[in-house]
Amino acid sequence: MKKIEAIIRKSKFDEVKKALHQIEVNFFSYWDVTGVGNEKQGHVYRGISYSTTDIQRRYLVIVVSDDFLDKTVSTILEIASTGNVGDGKIFVSDVLDAYRIRTKENGHAGIN
Amino acid sequence: MKKIEAIIRKSKFDEVKKALHQIEVNFFSYWDVTGVGNEKQGHVYRGISYSTTDIQRRYLVIVVSDDFLDKTVSTILEIASTGNVGDGKIFVSDVLDAYRIRTKENGHAGIN
Amino acid sequence: MKKIEAIIRKSKFDEVKKALHQIEVNFFSYWDVTGVGNEKQGHVYRGISYSTTDIQRRYLVIVVSDDFLDKTVSTILEIASTGNVGDGKIFVSDVLDAYRIRTKENGHAGIN
Ligand SMILES: Nc1ncnc2c1ncn2[C@@H]1O[C@H](COP(=O)(O)OP(=O)(O)OP(=O)(O)O)[C@@H](O)[C@H]1O
Ligand SMILES: Nc1ncnc2c1ncn2[C@@H]1O[C@H](COP(=O)(O)OP(=O)(O)OP(=O)(O)O)[C@@H](O)[C@H]1O
Ligand SMILES: Nc1ncnc2c1ncn2[C@@H]1O[C@H](COP(=O)(O)OP(=O)(O)OP(=O)(O)O)[C@@H](O)[C@H]1O
Ligand SMILES: [Mg+2]
Ligand SMILES: [Mg+2]
Ligand SMILES: [Mg+2]
Repeated sequence: MKKIEAIIRKSKFDEVKKALHQIEVNFFSYWDVTGVGNEKQGHVYRGISYSTTDIQRRYLVIVVSDDFLDKTVSTILEIASTGNVGDGKIFVSDVLDAYRIRTKENGHAGIN
Repeated sequence: MKKIEAIIRKSKFDEVKKALHQIEVNFFSYWDVTGVGNEKQGHVYRGISYSTTDIQRRYLVIVVSDDFLDKTVSTILEIASTGNVGDGKIFVSDVLDAYRIRTKENGHAGIN
Repeated sequence: MKKIEAIIRKSKFDEVKKALHQIEVNFFSYWDVTGVGNEKQGHVYRGISYSTTDIQRRYLVIVVSDDFLDKTVSTILEIASTGNVGDGKIFVSDVLDAYRIRTKENGHAGIN
């Protein structure tokens, strides 16, 4: 079981959600966060340098079984990207167990 | 040390908090998130199908010592449940260390 | 790769951000949460007992390479502290992988 944390542009959220749905990743949680960067992250557009300091981001938490990890990550990498600095990050970590509260099922049965 | 992440109905929060208090789990953090599901998660009430897509949930993070894990999970499973779809999830993961900022204590002394 | 979750006083955020910047920890995410405590956490000020129940906190998530862990934790411990109860917590956990969405780089190259 793995936890995927994706910090993406809010403007990319609907597309990402739809793409996840298409690979049958239907359940996740999200909230809005502030991302801190520094001036090195600024980009230049028409000669003006834009700092990406303290920008609004959307934070997604998606817990998946191990066999869903690769396709979930590659879907986010593909769909959340614009090619400009500040497209965001994906972090992957281990999850020991998952429970569905309604049925008290855990393990594989607890995820989806 | 374990991290328990519980995504529950907001309407169940006060009861869960009180029940955690009774087993001496007194400290945790929470915030509100949106939960994404799909139509399969809809339920039928008086003949009308309700989708649970994009519902408001409360996200709790509770870091406990290993000997508190089982009772904390079973308390949430019991108290946060209504028996209807959408009661939420509990995820358990490992925590390497905890620090109390005021005293700089870590390890077991850093948790509570 | 490690994930540092720091739950700090909002009033300490600007100082912490600046101190992190000075040790070249330039990227992280944050949002506001509520911290639950109990009356044991109350403190007495001029004879009046203040409960720290349900106080507003700022939650920081900082993913760093292993060689940045110690200085990041010690910087937060030093700067976020006031010496009064309720200064907050730091939790450390493992991260398996990090991806930069723009370039699809992962591993060490995916963090900063
Ligand atoms: N190490 C980190 N820990 C926690 N959150 C991070 C970290 N790095 C970035 N973030 C979050 O991800 C958001 C987007 O980061 P960003 O896309 O600028 O990453 P980047 O590595 O600087 O990539 P780019 O070079 O494309 O700008 C940040 O605003 C912040 O919320
Ligand atoms: N795999 C997941 N990763 C992250 N968050 C999830 C995941 N599954 C569910 N959630 C969160 O938990 C909330 C509640 O999920 P829900 O109770 O509908 O789970 P479920 O497995 O569909 O159970 P039920 O069959 O009882 O509906 C969701 O709205 C979402 O916020
Ligand atoms: N075990 C925990 N799990 C998750 N969050 C926690 C935990 N303990 C504390 N927190 C969060 O950290 C915030 C600050 O905690 P606090 O500083 O009161 O910790 P403490 O251990 O009681 O230290 P002190 O003795 O200095 O008060 C809480 O409001 C809560 O948001
Ligand atoms: Mg950047
Ligand atoms: Mg459901
Ligand atoms: Mg306290």
